[in-house]
This record gives sequence, C-alpha cells and structure tokens, in this order.
Amino acid sequence: MLIVGELINTSRRKVEAAVRDRDADFIGELAERQVAAGADYVDVNCGTLVGEEVEALPWLVKTVQARVDVPLCIDSANPEAIEAALRVHRGQAMVNSITAEGDRFESFLPLLQEHGASVIALCMDDQGIPETSEQRFEVALRLVEDLRAAGLKPEQIYIDPLIRPISTGSQFGVTALETIQRVKQHLNGVHTICGLSNISFGLPKRRVLNMTFLALCLSAGLDAAIMDPTETVNMAILRAAEALLGRDEYCRNYLEAYRQGKLSI
Amino acid sequence: MLIVGELINTSRRKVEAAVRDRDADFIGELAERQVAAGADYVDVNCGTLVGEEVEALPWLVKTVQARVDVPLCIDSANPEAIEAALRVHRGQAMVNSITAEGDRFESFLPLLQEHGASVIALCMDDQGIPETSEQRFEVALRLVEDLRAAGLKPEQIYIDPLIRPISTGSQFGVTALETIQRVKQHLNGVHTICGLSNISFGLPKRRVLNMTFLALCLSAGLDAAIMDPTETVNMAILRAAEALLGRDEYCRNYLEAYRQGKLSI
Repeated sequence: MLIVGELINTSRRKVEAAVRDRDADFIGELAERQVAAGADYVDVNCGTLVGEEVEALPWLVKTVQARVDVPLCIDSANPEAIEAALRVHRGQAMVNSITAEGDRFESFLPLLQEHGASVIALCMDDQGIPETSEQRFEVALRLVEDLRAAGLKPEQIYIDPLIRPISTGSQFGVTALETIQRVKQHLNGVHTICGLSNISFGLPKRRVLNMTFLALCLSAGLDAAIMDPTETVNMAILRAAEALLGRDEYCRNYLEAYRQGKLSI
Repeated sequence: MLIVGELINTSRRKVEAAVRDRDADFIGELAERQVAAGADYVDVNCGTLVGEEVEALPWLVKTVQARVDVPLCIDSANPEAIEAALRVHRGQAMVNSITAEGDRFESFLPLLQEHGASVIALCMDDQGIPETSEQRFEVALRLVEDLRAAGLKPEQIYIDPLIRPISTGSQFGVTALETIQRVKQHLNGVHTICGLSNISFGLPKRRVLNMTFLALCLSAGLDAAIMDPTETVNMAILRAAEALLGRDEYCRNYLEAYRQGKLSI
C-alpha cells in the first residue's frame, strides 16, 4: 500500500509558523522523518494561509524536494496554487484533490492534462457528499469516465470515498468500506485512497479506532492511505494486515519491518 | 461477537499443575478474570492429562461453574470425557469440537442430541484439512447438513474454518477469511468461530498479527472468537472494529469500554 505522509499541513500550528517564516529546516526535517518512516508521497498543504498559497505552495514543493526524493501530494482547493506548485515539482506529482463539482472539475482538469499528474478524486458533487455507498460509487464512476475521456489513465486516478466520523452516524465506516470495495470490483485499474483519522473524530482513544480502521480498509482493498507514518502503531498494523491478507510473500516485508524495529505498538 | 476465554487449558504448565492438584481456587480465579474481562463462554481443556480426562473434565466444569455464571465450552477429543462433563454442566454448553471425520462425528453426535449442546464443527474430514476455502466450505456444508438432519438447529452450529499459520503459507490468512465469508453468505443462521493465535505461529510480534487478524475476521463476519480476553489490546480492537463496522449503535459499547478503562493498547 502507498503511504501519503500528512504532517506538512498548516492546520498544524507549528507547521503554519514554519511556512510563514519560510523555515526550510523545519519543513525539510518533517519531510525526512516521514520518508524514513515509510512515506511514499509527502503531502503539502498550506490552505490556512489564505491569499498566500500561490507563493507558499511552490516554496513547500521546492523545500521538500530539496531534502527527499519522493514525489509530492499537492494539496489545495486553489487551482492557481496547484499550477504554481506543479510547475516547480520534479517527477509525477499527485494532486489533492478534484471533485465532481462542476467548477472545480473544470478548473483542475487542464492542470492534470498539462503536467501528467495523478489525482485524488473525492466522491462528492454539486449536491454535496452522497449518503450511501451506491450513490458515492455513482459519483466515482462519473469522475472516472470524465477523467478518462480527458485522457487520464485509470492508474492516475485515486478515488477517495470520503470519510465521515462514526460519531455522527453508525454506518459511516461501512459506507466508506463498501465504496472502496465497489471501486476495486468495478473500476479496473483505478486506485482507492482515503485519510484515516476523520473516522474517529469526536470519540475517545482515536488511535485505537484509526489503527483498526486501517486494517479494515486494507481488507476492503484500499491502495493508498493519507496518514501519519511516524505513528508506529499504524505502520505495524499495516505490515501485519498485508501479511495476513496474502499480500506479502513469505512475510518478507513483515519480517523486514521487525528487523528494523518498526512493529512496536 | 461472542468471546470464548481460552486460558483454562492444561497445555499451559500452571493450569496443568492446578488441575492435577485439583486447585479449585486457581481455576476459579482464572475463570473469574476471564469473565470480568468480557468472556461469554469459558473454555475448559485438560487434553494433556491422558487417561485422566474423564475425571478431570467434569471436575473443571463444576469448579468453574461454582465461581462464574457463564456457560462453558467443553473442549476434548474424547467422547467419554465430553459426556461426563456435559452431565454436570448447568445451562447450554458448547462442545469443542466435532469434525467431519467419520468416527468422531458418530461418537459425538448422540451427546449433542441428548444434551442439546451447541457445537464447534471444524472444517476437516478423513482426508485432513482441505487446502482451499472452496474445499473447506464443502466440508462445512456437509457438517451442517448432517447436523441439521440429526436435529440440531443452525444456531447451535459454530463452523471453525481452521487457522493455519501464515508462516507456513502466505495464503492461509485469506483461506480462513474467505471460508468465514462463504459460511456467513450461504449457510443462513449458522455461526462462525475460530481461535486467533495460531495464525501468527512461528513469527515475531505475534500480538500485532493476532490483533490485526481479529479486526479482519470481524470484517469477514466472524461471530465468535476463542481468545485470551485478558489481553486488553484484543478487546480494544474488538470494540473498535464493531463500532467501525456499524455493529455498535451510537458507539455505545465502545464508549462503555472507554469508561471502564478497557481501550488500552
């Protein structure tokens, strides 16, 4: 499974200060720690810096890529900021995120085409986030059809079912898991991705829910997770689930993680 | 999910000594600890005491039921010991276990009929443990048909897919999970059960594998687990998985477990 490290986000107070001060050491170190822990992509988000994203986001891209060799997940709702960031990004970036909302889809599409980026596509449209997994799958299907018609390959598309907290609806875990299963069953080659931590919002002992949800998502067929890779318990669960689901021949990755001391809980 | 506490088993050295010495305090306390931790059934097994089971097993039943109110899971391959234990058991016992092996099936069946016990039915026959989940399901189907023809209700039957360690075959986790899913999909009313810990035999950090496997089994539809309920991390994962899978309305059980300090990992 691909891991997108989520820590470089200005909704975190220290990160916001570091981006405001253009503190390259702080940001670079946060990128390095995530990659050392197992991140395949590093997410960069400075959405709280309203009006400054167009300058700050490309600075983040350059600063992170000066320190680590992985591609970035460029995370913004602002197409101008995305464009500025894609221009300075080396390699194939992932754009976080497109939706089936008319305006957003139209403004992001040319950027994906021009830069050959992968994209996270959220299961929501102008009517909002659909209630059921059937309806979310319909939005996913529409997104995939439209993105493919625009020239993207299935492998470039990461469908995000969107996670709503189970504290606000007992079925929201199942809705997300079923959407992942449907996409994997019916949309050949298309990937699935989600952020883990929103599921536990409003409940105590969120770590227990997040790690358990990771195992359940893997079982449903999740291909990529946006998460904190430095949270060792999540990485331990991830390696264990891959071994248990027959996706780790001879338990090689599990045993390698053990030797590296990465199976602590 | 039903929890069968597995700790009263003479394969554990201290338990063997306690049963040999008829140490009712030791056994009673072990039963109480498991029930306090959440066990719905207490398993009793003295299979290592070859030649003594017929006396020791009913002693265990009486000793445990003198201290706790839950029914027992009477665990032996010896039909005489099972019969002696069932005679002194109060309430509806679970017999652990029957198989599709001709001799074993014939000798256990009259005991189930006479005492109205539930039964764990292992997916193996005179040819051994089948390799694939399709073959294991065929054995399960045959067992259910034969048990129902003999008058048992579907609800009395707990199918155990049999867990082989993933260290001996990368697909053995998937085989078990698929067998559970097939039974739940196709055998209406029939329950599923399994022991958790065998999956991790031969690998390091077994706790990580066992807890992750519990989440995956719940996702596949497992109804009951034979496990150590005093291992708090397993109970935490269990409550979290039930909440995430929509089987815990308003997260009531999860929040109750939190208030009782039972979500530690």
